[in-house]
Amino acid sequence: MSESNYTEGQVLFEEDNHKVIWLGWEKDEGSGAVQTNQYLIIHGSKGILLDPGGVHLFPRVVAVISRYIDLDNIETILFSHQDPDVSSGIALWLGITNAAIHISELWMRFVPHFGLVDFSRLSSIPDSGGTVSTSTGAALNMLPAHYLHSPGNFSFYDPVSGILFSSDIGGAVFPKDTHYLFVDDFKTHLPIIEGFHQRLMTSGKVCKDWVERMRKNRISMIAPQHGAIFKDKAVDEFLDWLSNLQCGSDILSNFT
Amino acid sequence: MSESNYTEGQVLFEEDNHKVIWLGWEKDEGSGAVQTNQYLIIHGSKGILLDPGGVHLFPRVVAVISRYIDLDNIETILFSHQDPDVSSGIALWLGITNAAIHISELWMRFVPHFGLVDFSRLSSIPDSGGTVSTSTGAALNMLPAHYLHSPGNFSFYDPVSGILFSSDIGGAVFPKDTHYLFVDDFKTHLPIIEGFHQRLMTSGKVCKDWVERMRKNRISMIAPQHGAIFKDKAVDEFLDWLSNLQCGSDILSNFT
Repeated sequence: MSESNYTEGQVLFEEDNHKVIWLGWEKDEGSGAVQTNQYLIIHGSKGILLDPGGVHLFPRVVAVISRYIDLDNIETILFSHQDPDVSSGIALWLGITNAAIHISELWMRFVPHFGLVDFSRLSSIPDSGGTVSTSTGAALNMLPAHYLHSPGNFSFYDPVSGILFSSDIGGAVFPKDTHYLFVDDFKTHLPIIEGFHQRLMTSGKVCKDWVERMRKNRISMIAPQHGAIFKDKAVDEFLDWLSNLQCGSDILSNFT
Repeated sequence: MSESNYTEGQVLFEEDNHKVIWLGWEKDEGSGAVQTNQYLIIHGSKGILLDPGGVHLFPRVVAVISRYIDLDNIETILFSHQDPDVSSGIALWLGITNAAIHISELWMRFVPHFGLVDFSRLSSIPDSGGTVSTSTGAALNMLPAHYLHSPGNFSFYDPVSGILFSSDIGGAVFPKDTHYLFVDDFKTHLPIIEGFHQRLMTSGKVCKDWVERMRKNRISMIAPQHGAIFKDKAVDEFLDWLSNLQCGSDILSNFT
């Protein structure tokens, strides 16, 4: 990947009037903040923004989005869960767009702690999930991913592109100065996802349940909020691995 | 409890040079934010502040603290976990105090997403916990409470007062316009803690493990981050109940 892609993002899928864009990375890692991925879905003239992140990413994410769509045309912002790297920019995003923000009903009364929040622009996602649509006709599925790691967590599936936006699931923590956008070889990638999942995901039972439900969809890519995107055979290799993982409360004595 | 206590806080324990203070509640619930408790421990002239909360509580918490101690004498701020209602005021607290902030090593790279954070003032708590002391000689135990609900979560125990600051564990969500500081009758209190624990806590196994480890201490009160404080026989009644709870991944199909 060229240096410019780092900060300018990359189109992951494009067909007819439907486009999925990965919004790039911070060039400067000096802040010490964990690296995150943001994604934008555009259908016709309207957009859905996923997990746009906190204050310190805001200028870059705004700049990259603006290359693809007018900010006024973002109708929906999806927060997979309540962590600061996902949602702490909420007041900024409410200010700069007219979008409605969707987040688990569990966190509706927690996000106002970030500061001034207009409740009329928040929409709660019920535990069982649902669908969110653009006014131009695209429909995204909001699929329960609770306890992975957040108790109120969602993955988002785009049936047009087949991309599963998996939130923390599938996340990697890159070593300093190492980044790649796609997983080329699952075995080589494994060392930087293994510890992350063992520590953050709450149990193997919950992982297996998520894998079984996700596999009901045709998945072309798994796009996590941290690390690299799984595509081609890495999709199934990751799902097979996750389905058999022992983690969290399974190995509790490792962490106390 | 008198109306003034709501906003002015209340001393929970006082003996010799050691004092534990509950820092009050918001008078105005209009923000829609979930109610939270903040606590302050003063030993001699120095203080430790626990889970001070987000932006919207900041003026009240600062005002109440200032009734008891000079802000410059707060040496340590403890964050039990990464949720916005605990930690989103981090930049404000770093600005107004000279304190070091302690948080799970798991969240060290997540909190910078709140905004500008000086890493030299952050201290990571290892998974196994440890002790944090004031320069005046008080030592607080940091006890692992992982997956309850956060994967990187701590309870804090003060051996002088016997108070266990339990983070979300023991939390209640009060119905609108109902508040009480102490649990008088556990059975009456149960309906407003039951759903909270079933949904937020990740499994009965993890709850039982936490209870067993906490019971190694002499507990005079359990002071959670939400809801009311358990004391007298309500302490054991709560621990017995929690030890046998089925929750989270035990009853996963309830939530998908």
